[in-house]
Amino acid sequence: MTKHAEDRYELFYWPGIQGRGEFIRLAFEEAGVPYVDVARQSAQEGGGVAALQKALRGDGKSLKPFAAPFVRVGDVVVAQVANVLQFLGPRLGLVPEDEDARRDAHQLQLTLADLVSEVHETHHPISNALYYEDQKDEARRRASAFVGERLPKFLGYFEEVLERNTRSEGRHLVGEALTYVDLSAFQVLSGLGYAFPNGLAQVAANIPRLLALRDHVAARPRIAAYLASERRLPFNEQGIFRRYPELDAAPVH
Amino acid sequence: MTKHAEDRYELFYWPGIQGRGEFIRLAFEEAGVPYVDVARQSAQEGGGVAALQKALRGDGKSLKPFAAPFVRVGDVVVAQVANVLQFLGPRLGLVPEDEDARRDAHQLQLTLADLVSEVHETHHPISNALYYEDQKDEARRRASAFVGERLPKFLGYFEEVLERNTRSEGRHLVGEALTYVDLSAFQVLSGLGYAFPNGLAQVAANIPRLLALRDHVAARPRIAAYLASERRLPFNEQGIFRRYPELDAAPVH
Repeated sequence: MTKHAEDRYELFYWPGIQGRGEFIRLAFEEAGVPYVDVARQSAQEGGGVAALQKALRGDGKSLKPFAAPFVRVGDVVVAQVANVLQFLGPRLGLVPEDEDARRDAHQLQLTLADLVSEVHETHHPISNALYYEDQKDEARRRASAFVGERLPKFLGYFEEVLERNTRSEGRHLVGEALTYVDLSAFQVLSGLGYAFPNGLAQVAANIPRLLALRDHVAARPRIAAYLASERRLPFNEQGIFRRYPELDAAPVH
Repeated sequence: MTKHAEDRYELFYWPGIQGRGEFIRLAFEEAGVPYVDVARQSAQEGGGVAALQKALRGDGKSLKPFAAPFVRVGDVVVAQVANVLQFLGPRLGLVPEDEDARRDAHQLQLTLADLVSEVHETHHPISNALYYEDQKDEARRRASAFVGERLPKFLGYFEEVLERNTRSEGRHLVGEALTYVDLSAFQVLSGLGYAFPNGLAQVAANIPRLLALRDHVAARPRIAAYLASERRLPFNEQGIFRRYPELDAAPVH
């Protein structure tokens, strides 16, 4: 493996959406590490969607990814968001040193990934190959179950993890300091606030630590600068978190 | 951490189904390592569903799991199937030594986990809290998209991974020898054959290496003995892979 300081970090993900790529972007941004968001570069710079599609076909040496996002660091290609963050975490200083804490971080990241998949299912319960408009009725049923049952269950779990993490006095999900899991939790809460403002409002009183973590991450200097920059794409209705008011819970009065 | 030879392996999972626990059971069985399937023991032995539910509430020391399955090895509690297998793989001799191969194995396991989740969605596209009968129409639409698009895409991917793995002449997914990923691929193919016999038949001609891998795993002495034992629960309509003929593709003539 090449030395970390010499690594050139390349992120491969679809341009135009935060999507699952955002969990990786946030790690690079918090670490202050330069990275190339390949598909958002021009074709002249060797980027664009064509470069992403070429990389998706595999390089014949490393394991071909099933899907984006993935990262390339030297000769190493790593796919699956949680796997990518497990790989990058130690390199970017975003996970503790000890093995148990790293495994816990990964376990929480996989649970966040499950939540993210369920969010995606709310607007695509039948098929990703169909438009939302072609599965709107099913989406309404699915979203109702998500907001009513799954959202409170997942967020209640993460709140409890924070509460039990006395090493950080409930401020971080793993260990004593910020990890990539905290960054991902911020992203999930931001996305839920965009897609399900009423649904999130209904559970807000039960998740004070989680909301404080979200606000803490948003205020970290590098993250705040990133969020204010053009590198941060806005939420939109092509990504995972989509604002379809008919899928959000009724507001609480 | 305690010495491996002294470890007592406990699996916590719902009794009565193969479910996601089966990926872990297969690893223990292939390794020939004794393990306790806690919820399938009697209450007198300290087992049963009550023991599982107690463990799900957390021990106050280790990270509380979000859901079963999880394993306990000494003081260590590990949840999320792919995370569990990443933890057990080196201990059970089911993954190569080198770091790159281990990361590849984990990446493939996560991709199998995505496939397994999509299989579950075919019979529960709206909510896990509802019966299949209450989401049967949506299930039919979802399953049609799964069998028509997703199943060929996933299996075609894994076939290509085998084909490209010249180190094992296309016989194993990672490296030169059997890994936990091969065991999980066997389980997925067995489950697909149970739930979607027509769907699988439609792609069979395109996945010769994958089917050979499935048959190779089934014939390994310890796995063959396991499959013939009472420890192997039958597939049924409470697990992930369910035989609902109306969700399977029409047979090819």
